[in-house]
Amino acid sequence: MSKKILDVLNGTTLTPPPLWMMRQAGRTLPEYRQLRQKAGHFLNLCYNPDLACEATLQPIRRFDFDAAIIFSDILVVPHALGRHLDYKIGEGPVMDPLNPQDIENLKSDEALEKLEPIFKALQQVRQNLKNDKALIGFCGAPWTVATYMIAGRATSDQAPARLFLYQQPQKMKKLLEILADISADYLIKQIEAGADLVQIFDSWAGQLDEKGFDFCAVEPVKRMVKRIRRRFQDVPIIGFPRGAGLFYQDYAQKTNVTALSLDWTVPLDFGSQLQNQVPIQGNLDPQRLLAGGQALKEGVEAILTKLGSKPLIFNLGHGVEAKTPLAHIEKMIDIVSARGNPQG
Amino acid sequence: MSKKILDVLNGTTLTPPPLWMMRQAGRTLPEYRQLRQKAGHFLNLCYNPDLACEATLQPIRRFDFDAAIIFSDILVVPHALGRHLDYKIGEGPVMDPLNPQDIENLKSDEALEKLEPIFKALQQVRQNLKNDKALIGFCGAPWTVATYMIAGRATSDQAPARLFLYQQPQKMKKLLEILADISADYLIKQIEAGADLVQIFDSWAGQLDEKGFDFCAVEPVKRMVKRIRRRFQDVPIIGFPRGAGLFYQDYAQKTNVTALSLDWTVPLDFGSQLQNQVPIQGNLDPQRLLAGGQALKEGVEAILTKLGSKPLIFNLGHGVEAKTPLAHIEKMIDIVSARGNPQG
Repeated sequence: MSKKILDVLNGTTLTPPPLWMMRQAGRTLPEYRQLRQKAGHFLNLCYNPDLACEATLQPIRRFDFDAAIIFSDILVVPHALGRHLDYKIGEGPVMDPLNPQDIENLKSDEALEKLEPIFKALQQVRQNLKNDKALIGFCGAPWTVATYMIAGRATSDQAPARLFLYQQPQKMKKLLEILADISADYLIKQIEAGADLVQIFDSWAGQLDEKGFDFCAVEPVKRMVKRIRRRFQDVPIIGFPRGAGLFYQDYAQKTNVTALSLDWTVPLDFGSQLQNQVPIQGNLDPQRLLAGGQALKEGVEAILTKLGSKPLIFNLGHGVEAKTPLAHIEKMIDIVSARGNPQG
Repeated sequence: MSKKILDVLNGTTLTPPPLWMMRQAGRTLPEYRQLRQKAGHFLNLCYNPDLACEATLQPIRRFDFDAAIIFSDILVVPHALGRHLDYKIGEGPVMDPLNPQDIENLKSDEALEKLEPIFKALQQVRQNLKNDKALIGFCGAPWTVATYMIAGRATSDQAPARLFLYQQPQKMKKLLEILADISADYLIKQIEAGADLVQIFDSWAGQLDEKGFDFCAVEPVKRMVKRIRRRFQDVPIIGFPRGAGLFYQDYAQKTNVTALSLDWTVPLDFGSQLQNQVPIQGNLDPQRLLAGGQALKEGVEAILTKLGSKPLIFNLGHGVEAKTPLAHIEKMIDIVSARGNPQG
């Protein structure tokens, strides 16, 4: 049985399009909230293969999505490199801010070993996932990971990392290269462990200026794609440079990713143009899903109408909100499925 | 003596381009920090014509910028409408979150009267400003003001306001219309008090999806421009839909603003295309100015090279950072000025 998402990533148009949701394994589900409570610290969940496998499979059991995405976090990579990481309730991740002199002390050699439980989790998921479901591996893009490492937390425009880039471009280059190589190897190991495709999340790509975008968002991901392709020529790689706006087109061309995930601010006509270049994933505003009703219906239908006749993976334009009612997710799935039905 | 900025806004290309900085009146200047301490509460500074006039003139005295922008805050409008507003150190503005039923209680009738001290401040500035300097009035765009009113504070993606839009589109429309009308009247009064041009700051325009952008960012500003034009046909209006990316072009066409201010993420070739349509202001990353050195030089020169041969007002792509060294600002001014000098 073929995996629909892989067909789309190979350039096939499917009606209805396959569907999954960014952050589908997580706080939206009551069964996840139970699991989280049992696990205690958030990182226990990421580093325990049984628990991570369970969290990964929960949304598939409930919603029968076309793909499972491994339960993990983009900051396990800097954590594995030896940086301190904690999660504070209501604040999100907190790290010790990175100083330039810390870069040479990053423990690249030991990192993959520390990430071993995640590869085990992928193997377990693959064993428990039906053959027609794709398994997605992922990591943060070097720039986004660097922004958290430098600022120590998320800020509204990641100004500390931009300042670091401008003040110490050579140090930033070094940091991004270290992150690119370890992240590519991390994705390679995820593929070896059973991932059918991988996605690179660059959540803060939209805060860079033109030269900065090329230096921080394009070059490191291009480097990653090359490194992954040397080992796996055909495994699809989805790039998600959130907020890249006018840079999306260049990004696809220069990095050589297989497909683009579009955030909710991308106009659909532009998305349709991009589909002439690569398959597209996205891009419903998660707030429309949270709101439900007419806003949800309108949003889903606009995407299906404008992007549905070329290769599309239906998804959100960012992670699902924790408080999203499950009935709204079911409604979204119903509307998308109805597109393949002549009565729909 | 003609005002250079007005010439550019009329379609003239000037070499070197005129220059001012968003948030130039403020914490970057030691003389402002003194004034702020004297004033006590931040709002005392906005509502005291002598102090606001002084804060407005400080950057002109120090840097001889081509324009003064009235010292104020975008949230004085909801404050004048009767909403509670406070400024907490390290947190920025805090308001009581707006509920839908609060909308009908907004005190539009009394608002302009409450804003009277700001008009007085403009008159004072005009009396103390040389004739070749432009005086800029401003306000927040309805969407951006609404995001603060609804969430009660800035959030990284203004999700609460997006949810409000999707759940209560009619209430949101009403709120945006109220804000559009009072904001237009507020700008009209600023022009009557001596502003040569006005700028509408839509700092959170970049968080909207396609339909949302039209509804929340385009329509209210179009309504404002119409209302202002009925009173002042020719006063230039600069639109600044920060982060609008792919929507910038549409925004200029549909709202009928005179010129666009571009944030730092806009690629310069796209900026140059926009210049065929309207004069452009911008767009140096404020972090480049904070960093200084090569990053500053490169950033300034790229803008001058790509945008300098069509109508340009040199500016930052967002407000100047509080910790920016004054020497960096002087350096930026030097590089820009050198462009008009055959030896430069």
